[in-house]
Amino acid sequence: MNTKNYNDGPLVIAIDSSTTSTKAIIVNASGHVVVSAKNSIQLHTPAMDFYEHNPIRWWETTRDSIQEAVSQLLPKDRERIAAIGITHQRESFACFDKKGKPIRNGILWLDGRATKQIKQFGSKHIHNLSGKPPGEPPAIYKLAWLKENEPQTLEKAYKIVDVHGYITWNLTGEWVSSEASADTLGLFDIRNRNYSSELMDIAGVKRDQMADLVPPGQIMGFLKSELITTWGLSKSIPVIAGAGDGMAAGIGAAAVTPDIAYLNLGTAVVAGVQSSEYKYNPVFRNYVAGIPGNYIFEVVQHSGAYLAGWFRQALGDPKLLGEPDIRLDKEADIIPPGCEGLITLPYWNAVQSPYWDALARGAVVGWRGTHSRAHMYRSILEGITYEVKMNLEFLQKGTGVNLTSLRIMGGGTRSELWRQMVTDITGIPITICLEDEISALGAAIQAMASTGVFGNKDIAYASKQMAHFGNTIEPNLERHAIYNEVGEIQRKLYPQLKDIFTQLHKLAEKYPGPKPESPKSEL
Amino acid sequence: MNTKNYNDGPLVIAIDSSTTSTKAIIVNASGHVVVSAKNSIQLHTPAMDFYEHNPIRWWETTRDSIQEAVSQLLPKDRERIAAIGITHQRESFACFDKKGKPIRNGILWLDGRATKQIKQFGSKHIHNLSGKPPGEPPAIYKLAWLKENEPQTLEKAYKIVDVHGYITWNLTGEWVSSEASADTLGLFDIRNRNYSSELMDIAGVKRDQMADLVPPGQIMGFLKSELITTWGLSKSIPVIAGAGDGMAAGIGAAAVTPDIAYLNLGTAVVAGVQSSEYKYNPVFRNYVAGIPGNYIFEVVQHSGAYLAGWFRQALGDPKLLGEPDIRLDKEADIIPPGCEGLITLPYWNAVQSPYWDALARGAVVGWRGTHSRAHMYRSILEGITYEVKMNLEFLQKGTGVNLTSLRIMGGGTRSELWRQMVTDITGIPITICLEDEISALGAAIQAMASTGVFGNKDIAYASKQMAHFGNTIEPNLERHAIYNEVGEIQRKLYPQLKDIFTQLHKLAEKYPGPKPESPKSEL
Repeated sequence: MNTKNYNDGPLVIAIDSSTTSTKAIIVNASGHVVVSAKNSIQLHTPAMDFYEHNPIRWWETTRDSIQEAVSQLLPKDRERIAAIGITHQRESFACFDKKGKPIRNGILWLDGRATKQIKQFGSKHIHNLSGKPPGEPPAIYKLAWLKENEPQTLEKAYKIVDVHGYITWNLTGEWVSSEASADTLGLFDIRNRNYSSELMDIAGVKRDQMADLVPPGQIMGFLKSELITTWGLSKSIPVIAGAGDGMAAGIGAAAVTPDIAYLNLGTAVVAGVQSSEYKYNPVFRNYVAGIPGNYIFEVVQHSGAYLAGWFRQALGDPKLLGEPDIRLDKEADIIPPGCEGLITLPYWNAVQSPYWDALARGAVVGWRGTHSRAHMYRSILEGITYEVKMNLEFLQKGTGVNLTSLRIMGGGTRSELWRQMVTDITGIPITICLEDEISALGAAIQAMASTGVFGNKDIAYASKQMAHFGNTIEPNLERHAIYNEVGEIQRKLYPQLKDIFTQLHKLAEKYPGPKPESPKSEL
Repeated sequence: MNTKNYNDGPLVIAIDSSTTSTKAIIVNASGHVVVSAKNSIQLHTPAMDFYEHNPIRWWETTRDSIQEAVSQLLPKDRERIAAIGITHQRESFACFDKKGKPIRNGILWLDGRATKQIKQFGSKHIHNLSGKPPGEPPAIYKLAWLKENEPQTLEKAYKIVDVHGYITWNLTGEWVSSEASADTLGLFDIRNRNYSSELMDIAGVKRDQMADLVPPGQIMGFLKSELITTWGLSKSIPVIAGAGDGMAAGIGAAAVTPDIAYLNLGTAVVAGVQSSEYKYNPVFRNYVAGIPGNYIFEVVQHSGAYLAGWFRQALGDPKLLGEPDIRLDKEADIIPPGCEGLITLPYWNAVQSPYWDALARGAVVGWRGTHSRAHMYRSILEGITYEVKMNLEFLQKGTGVNLTSLRIMGGGTRSELWRQMVTDITGIPITICLEDEISALGAAIQAMASTGVFGNKDIAYASKQMAHFGNTIEPNLERHAIYNEVGEIQRKLYPQLKDIFTQLHKLAEKYPGPKPESPKSEL
């Protein structure tokens, strides 16, 4: 952390447009958030597994949040604003006419409509070419869905861009996106950091329908003069090419070398490291990084903090209504590692890294009568964390570099029990990131680096000046050794249960329970 | 059920001396309990896994319960008492001097001290010879433990007898037991229904230390004159050879032909059928039956109603303190068979029939986020019942006769959900036994048959006159077909998880939780 006084230096605006809202923060060169504002975005679910946004909201919430943040500054501080950085939900896209009017709702990363197209086009070859394992997130399969089901949408589209591209168009009048943002659509030959004809053919799109590309950290264009006037700014403001939210979070955590991973203990658990070269691996996905020339190797587990919440809701004390249960954490804390022989495979939401098996399910194995609620809770947390350890091993094999530090973030970091478990199980020291808006901080770092305030424009260097950390916690080596033994056994569960999961999937499809009420679009 | 008026016929006293108490019931020829009394027995646990009784209590509680029951009768009804029948906890034994004084505490069926001896002597050969799979219950291994650890106890013993033998000695002055009681010690060449020299050698006992044998239903001796006087009875009262409690329950349920099984949904689930010949099978254990010349094939699952209670205690609503939860039963009832892909291997207390694997543990497999507390509860009940179905299949293969009726008894019969599940999963109609003291009723039937009141002394015939039943419930064939599909998948769990269970057992031994307070003997 840089302790210089930044009362006088440049400020940057950073935008994070996520699945639920768009936030704007204004940050100084020491990485402190001076002011912030947030506006929410309505999620639309017009059919089961369809998830959409009205993309106009991507811009309206950006505009309003910047307006609200800037209005909190004194006029003299408004003059300090030197650049705008952007981060955003990845893989989501929308189609626009020549005037920037949306042709239909945007389709989001979590939308699951394209199962047929994933089966038809998904392959090891496509993974190797694009860096993205076949699955729900990449836009390519949903574009192929549009090609088959709404061909007129693609025909009419003047531009088909990610969230970054549409915000940039509104800020600058240019149809430009960052390489580290457009890549998330899954249309890149990732080695070349550019669109692939083969992948665009599958998607049914043409090169001139796509955004132009700028490397992250570079200037994409300048803020329109009417916006400078509206917001009361005073000079030419460059808009800096950003990155998707996961990669931006890594920059916000200064995890900018291959020996340091970022680990987001959120609803999903996501971990990633920087690499100077692309590498295909069935376990992880690759993204173009927010640091020019780099790639991100990223592992993901959809059942992260989600599962602790599920447990409290489904099997906790009903009177707590799913809220955190302090007594449960305390009871779980005194149970020995390995939970007296109770192990958990945490695939409640199927498994992504390392097996990418959409039919996998959870398992709790080793029950004896001495086990209690706290044993199951602890076993679930251990299970998630054994998977983190395994996935980090794959990342380390990928980069060839051992991890010496995990930068942890997300809601799960509030649990002392889980924090200690993460370092004890992985055997790697963990450092807690203090900034809640860590992705937005990453975009702010990219923007601040571009101002040259640190004497160079190196984003990695800037991240070390601006990131803020809490305590570092070292692994307890005795517990680490025990967890290693347990983890070896836990790792045997999936190969033994894989076929049974497939059969249970068919069974559950054949004999479903009462359906939940179908969510309705409000468009 | 016989509807004749038995206000004038013979009455019999039946004793059931169990692990917790001795009950005396007085029963008429229609099988109705006229009066009853009960006295409890203190369980002693002088060390971990050691379970003992002071055997004097076997007699004292018998004496006091008979006294209290008889005293409730009018003098004219006391004169009707025509015989005494006996049933009791199986496999338990004690050592006595010539005067009937215990040399040490009796060692019970659930005592687990003899693990070394079970490993040393237990074998397929011993199972085949005695009808008893190696494991904790049979006395033979605990006698071998005494031989090694307390040789003077066996040397000093004038008689070493089961519970029936000691009660009979007190009632009649004779060291006699029923074949169907002494057999449970595991010292019989079961084909010959008599002690085996080979097994007595392993146990370190001699033939003349053992009780004389009488076939079940025959007269073992007559009530001592001083007891006739004390209890105010008026004629010579024969004491009839009984059977262990499981076999007696089958008689109480009139499950006396190979097409009808008794099924006790108690803490443990126990099911058995009659067979006219002995058959070795690794899945079930054989006992000399309470009907002369017959054998009982019996399967046992230690995690029966126990597990429903465990669930309510460990994962239920804490404010109910483990008491039955009506809402939970209702919620579980509307979940479809197969619990939307959640299956349970109910080996919380290891597995007995069919695998006899002391290291096996429970598993709940197939979790998705849609699952709730009620799903787990229902899945546990289904899991227990799939095992019942599988075990009944082995019984049917053993006898070569298809089951057409299950006579159900025990605490689990109070759950409408579980009752319906038992018939739906097994595909066999179930009939509920109305008598709570079903083992004692079995002993009463043996005693009543011996009086000749039914025109013959056939115990099977008598059982049909005296047993009382509630409703018969037929399987729903649609649900039965679905449960068959689920059961096929559930049955694959154990082979897949067997090795992992062994590893978890070692792990739990190596890293135990805080020990519960060691229970102390009060002797």
